[in-house]
Amino acid sequence: MSILVVGSVAYDTVETPREKRDRQLGGSASFFAIATRGRGDVRCVGVVGDDFRQEDLELLAERGADVTGIQRVPGKSFHWSGRYHEDMIERDTLATELGVFADFQPRIPDAWKESEYLFLANIHPALQGHVLEAMTAPRLVALDTMNLWIETTPDELQAILARVDILLVNDGEARQLTGERSLAHAAAAIRAMGPDRVVVKKGEHGALYFGPDSVLAVPAIILDDVIDPTGAGDCFAGGFMGSLAEAGATRDSSDKVFRQAMLDGTVTASFCPEGFNVEGLLKIDDAAYAARMAVLKGMMIP
Amino acid sequence: MSILVVGSVAYDTVETPREKRDRQLGGSASFFAIATRGRGDVRCVGVVGDDFRQEDLELLAERGADVTGIQRVPGKSFHWSGRYHEDMIERDTLATELGVFADFQPRIPDAWKESEYLFLANIHPALQGHVLEAMTAPRLVALDTMNLWIETTPDELQAILARVDILLVNDGEARQLTGERSLAHAAAAIRAMGPDRVVVKKGEHGALYFGPDSVLAVPAIILDDVIDPTGAGDCFAGGFMGSLAEAGATRDSSDKVFRQAMLDGTVTASFCPEGFNVEGLLKIDDAAYAARMAVLKGMMIP
Repeated sequence: MSILVVGSVAYDTVETPREKRDRQLGGSASFFAIATRGRGDVRCVGVVGDDFRQEDLELLAERGADVTGIQRVPGKSFHWSGRYHEDMIERDTLATELGVFADFQPRIPDAWKESEYLFLANIHPALQGHVLEAMTAPRLVALDTMNLWIETTPDELQAILARVDILLVNDGEARQLTGERSLAHAAAAIRAMGPDRVVVKKGEHGALYFGPDSVLAVPAIILDDVIDPTGAGDCFAGGFMGSLAEAGATRDSSDKVFRQAMLDGTVTASFCPEGFNVEGLLKIDDAAYAARMAVLKGMMIP
Repeated sequence: MSILVVGSVAYDTVETPREKRDRQLGGSASFFAIATRGRGDVRCVGVVGDDFRQEDLELLAERGADVTGIQRVPGKSFHWSGRYHEDMIERDTLATELGVFADFQPRIPDAWKESEYLFLANIHPALQGHVLEAMTAPRLVALDTMNLWIETTPDELQAILARVDILLVNDGEARQLTGERSLAHAAAAIRAMGPDRVVVKKGEHGALYFGPDSVLAVPAIILDDVIDPTGAGDCFAGGFMGSLAEAGATRDSSDKVFRQAMLDGTVTASFCPEGFNVEGLLKIDDAAYAARMAVLKGMMIP
């Protein structure tokens, strides 16, 4: 099964109370692609500047991602810089330098337009719309967004929401998007906007799935040590979509396959904060993954 | 099985964005006793003033609580007054009038000293210690506490912690008590202080159980409407201890029985915010309880 992801391929400078790392590989498409762990043929669409290190593209390729859809153009790569507080949850954005990402126009190679799964990572909703229009007939389309688009481009966001199957957002965004305090009400309101299934990510408190027939609450795996949580949401999405692709899910599949995808998203995301940037993800092997899935089920099944 | 609870029997004045209720029945022992729902013979030890309404004692008695251990003395009953914010989670305490509770000296009727289960609700840890000393040989002792005692009477708190089987606290208190940010580290540190089992309550995010052999994460049931969450933590404790009493649990029981008690605590607590003071609890019947247990399991089992 093929998975197309459109998002940022970027450099992150991350400062924690213990360490600082400059210009490490980051961006939603990077985290997502590595997080799928070969559960689908992942195709990345994005843009980088001429400062982007070839070795970082090679890392993505080594991890099974097709990076031929990542354009390289003159200018600087998208660079985000942030500082985490002592609690390793709150963070301050120090700089957001869009660079070549400011004029990003996703170009989908013709052969990729028939991709079966589509993840529209957090970019301008109008661009998300253009990508979706270019696709032939994806089996499942999932969307991420953020407070910026909820505030500044509500109409474009509503237009794309009406056409996707799954929305993945955090709890604050779900509330902001709907004006509902209760996450149950928020999920119902989002489902009325279009997506049949809603995933609400709550960070250390886990994630909720609201489907046509059921609700599932998945706790976060409790970590001994948090090094750098940047990208965990995109890792969740990668594990989630990889699981769906592996299962051959369609929009008519039963909730069961989506509930399993929630577990895969959670297990995958749990590795992310255990290293800087993508380092935590790179430590996943089948044994570590299976062990953590057993821990998660042990935390869930009474 | 008999359950002894020592705590406050009080009046609460609660203001929400929609309504205000003056001097309603409240207090940890009241919520706890009603929440056990006859799963054990509940014996309440507490103190009220001469302003306390006889009908409120009768309500507790009707719900199966033995209230002969509630002393009535001259003066005012403990009165707490608070105002909830729009989110119905944050609240400001407007007044805490201890009244006769300031000089509360728990008196355990002789026949009650052989009670099998003991819940030491949130009172001064030295008083909790006196109660425990008066007991013959309880099967299980659970303790609640709060930030006030963590800050002002740490030595007395450590002394009682060393002698109890279960600590129930919220996530903020667990972190404050141990200085650990990670709840896994906090639970390990608490277990090193004495209690073999730790329950961390996280409000709308559910609760965690840390036992000798396992960890369980139970989500909160998602409510359509929150009227008044006051007392939900004590309702959790009542459902939890009632479940343990019904199962005949001892401190050597396997984690399985405690994991079931977590579900019973969660289901019981979920009714509390659906009405003012104890009104939500009073709506529980067997059918409503079973239906909500099914919802909870549906949210938990992948």
